[in-house]
Parts: sequence; C-alpha cells; structure tokens
Amino acid sequence: MIHTHQTAPTQFVEANGIRFAYRRFGKPDGVPLVFNQHFTGTMDHWDPAVTDGLATEREVILFNNAGVSSSSGEVPASFEQMAANAVSFIKALGLPKVDVLGFSIGGFVAQEITLQAPDLVRRLVLVGTGPRSGEGMATLTPEAQEIFGATYDEPDHLWLRVHFTRSEKSQAAGREFLKRFRLRAENRDPEVNEKVAPAQIEAISKWGAPREKPFEYLKSIRQPALVVNGGKDVIIYSVNSFILQQHLPSAQLILYPDSNHGSQYQYPALFVADVTRFLDAVVPFPIQKDTDHA
Amino acid sequence: MIHTHQTAPTQFVEANGIRFAYRRFGKPDGVPLVFNQHFTGTMDHWDPAVTDGLATEREVILFNNAGVSSSSGEVPASFEQMAANAVSFIKALGLPKVDVLGFSIGGFVAQEITLQAPDLVRRLVLVGTGPRSGEGMATLTPEAQEIFGATYDEPDHLWLRVHFTRSEKSQAAGREFLKRFRLRAENRDPEVNEKVAPAQIEAISKWGAPREKPFEYLKSIRQPALVVNGGKDVIIYSVNSFILQQHLPSAQLILYPDSNHGSQYQYPALFVADVTRFLDAVVPFPIQKDTDHA
Repeated sequence: MIHTHQTAPTQFVEANGIRFAYRRFGKPDGVPLVFNQHFTGTMDHWDPAVTDGLATEREVILFNNAGVSSSSGEVPASFEQMAANAVSFIKALGLPKVDVLGFSIGGFVAQEITLQAPDLVRRLVLVGTGPRSGEGMATLTPEAQEIFGATYDEPDHLWLRVHFTRSEKSQAAGREFLKRFRLRAENRDPEVNEKVAPAQIEAISKWGAPREKPFEYLKSIRQPALVVNGGKDVIIYSVNSFILQQHLPSAQLILYPDSNHGSQYQYPALFVADVTRFLDAVVPFPIQKDTDHA
Repeated sequence: MIHTHQTAPTQFVEANGIRFAYRRFGKPDGVPLVFNQHFTGTMDHWDPAVTDGLATEREVILFNNAGVSSSSGEVPASFEQMAANAVSFIKALGLPKVDVLGFSIGGFVAQEITLQAPDLVRRLVLVGTGPRSGEGMATLTPEAQEIFGATYDEPDHLWLRVHFTRSEKSQAAGREFLKRFRLRAENRDPEVNEKVAPAQIEAISKWGAPREKPFEYLKSIRQPALVVNGGKDVIIYSVNSFILQQHLPSAQLILYPDSNHGSQYQYPALFVADVTRFLDAVVPFPIQKDTDHA
C-alpha cells in the first residue's frame, strides 16, 4: 500500500531518551526530505497539498520534535537543543543524508541542524523564516502578538490570520487550506500541551536577540539553499528572507505575491514545483569558494 | 524558414518620426514578448540562450529604441520619453497586447511603458533593475563607475565585470555568455554612437534622483510582474528588486545565488524556465483589490 499524508501511520523511534513520533510516505528512492514544523504545530499542521505534492518525487518524513504532541520529552528552550534532538531522530532512522525543510521556527531548527551536522544535510529549504537577530525578531512582531492573542470563532481560524493576508483571494486560499489540513480523519496528532508555547517562545527570544555580527554564522552553511516566503509576512518579516539569501553562500530567494507567513499553502502547486526543481537539480547552484567573494 | 536569434533579419518600422530596427522570431502564437535593453546595448547584446530559449514557446521581439544603433533619431534624456517611443514602436507593429521584459535601464523603460499604456501590457518581467529613487540609484554605483571606467584587453570583457561576480563559477559562465552573444556572425548591429551614453546617463540621474514617496507609482502597475536579479548585483543593487516586489501589487521576486547584474545570463536555462512558467500561467497570481491590503 502506498501511503499518503492521510493514511501514513504514526510510527515511533527512540533516540536521545526521546520517543519520536513520525510519519514516512512518498517515493522511497533517493534523499528523503525531513519537515520541521512551526510554533505549536504538529504533524497535522502540514498541508497535504504540499506534503503529498512533494512525495510524488521523493520520500517525505514528518515528525514531532521532543515534547511536541505525540513525541515524549520536553521542548528545550533553545533551537540548538531542538536541532540536537532532530539530528538524533534523523540518525536513529539510519539515514546518512537528508534534505531539510523548515517552516517558521522550524527554519531556525533547520539552520541549526545544518550547522551541527553539515555532513547529514544535502540541501536546505527555508520557508517563512529568518536568521538569528533578524528584523523584528527580538520579540514576537506586534502583528503576531495581536494575531496569536486574539480569540476566534473556530480555533482553526487562527491560521487564516497567521498564514494568509487579508485580501479576498488570500483568505479564499486559506479556507481551502483549512479544509485540506483537516482531511486526515483518523489517527491525528493530539494538540500540544501547555508547556510547548512558553518553551518555544523562550527559544525564539534567544534566537532573535540582538548580537554582534549576527549573520556571520550563515557563511558556514555551505549547502545549496532555497529561501521562500510570502512578500507580506507579518509573523517573520519578509525582509528576513532577503537577509538569509544575502548572507547564505549559495541561496536562491523566492517571494510570492500577496501572501503572508504561509505562502506555500496559498500557492501549493507553485511551491511544490519550485522545491521539486531545486531538490532535483543535478547542480542547483555553484558554491562560491571563500576567496571568491565579489 | 524558422528564424532564430542568429538568423532573424533586422527589419524596420516607422513610428513617431523614428525608423525603428527590430527582429522577430519564435513561435508566432499568442502574446509576443518585447525586450528592452540595458545601457548602451543593442539587439546583439541579448543572450541567444535566453532569447531562443523563450522563443520556443512564444514570439520574441528585439528592437533598438530611438537613437540606439540601427534605429534612427536621438536618445531622449528621460525614460518617460524612451517609453513613449517604445509604445509607438509596439503600436506601429499593430500589436494590441504584449508582454514586456526590461533588463537594467530597460526595466525602467518597461515600467514607464506599463504606466503609459496599461492596456497594451499583459505581463511584466523586470530583470536586474529597480524603482525610481531606488537605493544607490541617484548616480551610478561606485562599483559601476569603476567597472565602466576601466579599460579591458578586449572590449567584450567589460561584460564579465558588469554581468558576473568575481567567483570562478560566475566568470566561467561569463566566458560562455560572451561566446554565445558573438554567435550571430552576419548582420550584427553597429555599436552605439557617442551620443547614447550621455543621454542615457542623464535619464538615469533623473530616474534615480530622490523624491517624496518614491515608490507610490508602483501601485499603479496592476499587471502581474516577475522580478528577477542576481543576489549580488553591484550595478543596480539587489535590494532594489526586493523594493520592487514589496511595492508592486502583484509581483513575484526571484534572486539567484552568486550572481551579479546579468544573473539571467549565468543561469539561462533556469531563467527561461522561470519566465516561461510565469508568462504561461493561466492566472499567475491574484491581483489585490485596493481595499484588500493587509
């Protein structure tokens, strides 16, 4: 049986003292793509249009990091530690090489995974995310505070504000997204417990805090990277995607129009095509030598 | 006979008192794509990998604007006037609707064409360019002054500095580009005369001059736009492509890695694929309503 986002069973693997919940599906050849999720999100917060779309050409691995939903343990209060857990998880699956996708704070984890285990990571997809000490990243943005602090008729409607702009077209795309991400009817992940958000927020404040030469570390990420965001991201400002592209040695930037934090859910077909092309390219981009900088 | 970049004859059409030189080739269905050239460039400065690549799916029209090379008349000292000439040229060909591509100062012309004749333009491709009063655009950038002021063993080697970074990979791509753009052996355009550069520089200084609310005009450009540049453009800084994307109502941004002003010549296959997908999309992106802004 070929599994999909809807049918893939939740499996478990033990590593670093944590029982990690994960799901694997898609074409089992080649380098698998490991997804790192956003603030308070579980495996069920991914859009099947994106995961199943990417799974037609590669194996896709969703997981909950330590302390999140169906995984055991505690959420550590730093992205370095979350990445150490993620690396343990990937190694526990016996995978020698993976592609890593990170969305929002999952993009912080993805960067730290690459720094900690450069030989484990082939290519990097950074979606709706930013660098350490990026613009407006020392705290939640005012827009994020308002959006996460508000109450909604239906809890899912939070994501219409987080991931989509106020435009009619974007909101319509958001309602389609909400239908898709509720499609998996059985064996859904439990919502995260009350300890997750505070630990993640503490980690965010450390990651975003101002520091000297904040973007220097990006030079150490030699993997080809694709940086994607909406042009109107109010959760992690879009300029942070530009900063990532400018400081990573070999990165392409794509900003989609009229889209907020979840641009990949607004344009899932476009996003799947862009990511697939990037991951499938024989040589996606040339890496510069250190001596080569113009 | 199916013509290509190499074989397309130079034709002429009279409009606005000017005898415009142009070349048409490619698949003659659908909406043609009109190319607007960079500083002191002629029809022969386009890369056949790009023009022939795009011509497999659409008709491509190259031309020299007034006063440039094989076209008669004088180069006007403003982009508004250059655009008025370009609009006359397009209408003289009897074309009711075109897609417009502009590279560098050709991107300024492309924006002005769209403002002056919005019904004539279906979609817009802005490459290695920027908005009015963009960053570092009040004069030539220091890098541009050095590069255009230097002397070269072979005159063509100027373009290795303008269009490519100093990295080994980028320079190697540059040498391949120079071979390609010399492939057309017969009926090449004459180089521009000595009046072209001063008039274009005067126009550049007006376009780039600081002004109040410089980017407001971009809201009037309602066409779907694709903004493309190298991540390390030293001629028109890459941040200007970001500014274009942020202020155009419906624009996608792509920045390629390790590439300078001529990123489309460094990655011609990637560029052709990106532009083709954008121009062929049934609905490339939703346009926001004025009341929709997030």
